[in-house]
Amino acid sequence: MSGLSNNPLYEGKSKNVFPGPKADELIIRYKNTATAFNGAKKEELEGKGKLNAAISGFIFRYLAKNGINTHLLRDLDETSVLVKKAEIIMVEVIVRNLAAGGFSKKYGIPEGTVLNNTVVEFCLKSDSLDDPMINQSQITAIALATQEELDEMIRQALRINELLTALFMDAGIRLIDFKLEFGRLHNNGDTEVILCDEISPDSCRLWDLDTHNKMDKDRFRRDMGGVLEGYREVLGRLKNVKQI
Amino acid sequence: MSGLSNNPLYEGKSKNVFPGPKADELIIRYKNTATAFNGAKKEELEGKGKLNAAISGFIFRYLAKNGINTHLLRDLDETSVLVKKAEIIMVEVIVRNLAAGGFSKKYGIPEGTVLNNTVVEFCLKSDSLDDPMINQSQITAIALATQEELDEMIRQALRINELLTALFMDAGIRLIDFKLEFGRLHNNGDTEVILCDEISPDSCRLWDLDTHNKMDKDRFRRDMGGVLEGYREVLGRLKNVKQI
Repeated sequence: MSGLSNNPLYEGKSKNVFPGPKADELIIRYKNTATAFNGAKKEELEGKGKLNAAISGFIFRYLAKNGINTHLLRDLDETSVLVKKAEIIMVEVIVRNLAAGGFSKKYGIPEGTVLNNTVVEFCLKSDSLDDPMINQSQITAIALATQEELDEMIRQALRINELLTALFMDAGIRLIDFKLEFGRLHNNGDTEVILCDEISPDSCRLWDLDTHNKMDKDRFRRDMGGVLEGYREVLGRLKNVKQI
Repeated sequence: MSGLSNNPLYEGKSKNVFPGPKADELIIRYKNTATAFNGAKKEELEGKGKLNAAISGFIFRYLAKNGINTHLLRDLDETSVLVKKAEIIMVEVIVRNLAAGGFSKKYGIPEGTVLNNTVVEFCLKSDSLDDPMINQSQITAIALATQEELDEMIRQALRINELLTALFMDAGIRLIDFKLEFGRLHNNGDTEVILCDEISPDSCRLWDLDTHNKMDKDRFRRDMGGVLEGYREVLGRLKNVKQI
């Protein structure tokens, strides 16, 4: 990519972050690397970067059109996007509509069990501590975020869940669960909480509505094969959705 | 003990539960067994049962006098108490004033760090799943308790924390953290949430106010020796407190 330094500010498991053209901008470049279990499992999947950049870009634009403020400014090329530089809040938000994955294992609830209410969880963003789950009183107790920020993150996460559930439903896909990251955007003394990071089959569980076939990173985690085919199918179906 | 069947209804790690004289009563008998790490570490400590029965009885009576409804009816002998039979809510409540133990390890916060606010955590009561932490939206999602019950448990836990912090402070002891269990008492169609189980150095972290010496189960967990001496000191100091 033209003008892009070779030295990332931050090297992530599936994305690198570079300085942007302005001080308040960053460039995110999606990698082909697939990782799971906090990096213990790792593989290069040719074309994954492009697919995730396209899917996440599609979803972020859909959310922005529906009133969610995000860090996304514009695409730069097939794997790189320009974003607003926000101060990342060090807790991830996980939203669950059906039991699956870690939730099912941890609490002994079979995958696919319908939950009585939407679950919202927080995890500390820390590879060295293995991203442990953390609750709201713990987050405020160690000053990772204020209660007002948590309330705002929950409000946005639930709204994003409504919007994405509807979008994926139109694509014949059930949104099982997903992970979000938020950041603080400082602006003339005001601070706004905005959606950052990505939303892609790396960070969502997506099941075909009829067959329950997995179209997400569980295909990689569980050695099911057809990882990229799943991601490609998600992108193809999203592009065919008639957006309201 | 006279009249006590040899067959417990429930055999716990540090207590056994027997049928009571009436259908709505139970007998709890404290054992001398000390266990840690979900039973992986285990030892008989002669006299621990008596000490915990005495300490927990003292604390439950103090709480009852101060408006907390508990399951305790009366002592039967030095290791056995008669309690109301409640339907145990399958989540434990942990209250933390300072960082210690699992919290410190999990989130990388040094032991003894003062927290910005009182932390309230829930854990699923499940030995086979290793008592995993669980948040409020997860608890209601899998129908372990209602939001109203959680609100009531948190309200009581915070009030108990105020009462116990003051009590232990008068005994020259800092209350670092503790674990509570609650139960549903069904009464003429009404359901009341009451305090159950025990409160003892098995379920609290208690540090000497001046020396920070540990007087709780961490002495056993960490092979520090002087376990019973610590428990005996707690009981002795509590008995000397001038209660309001």
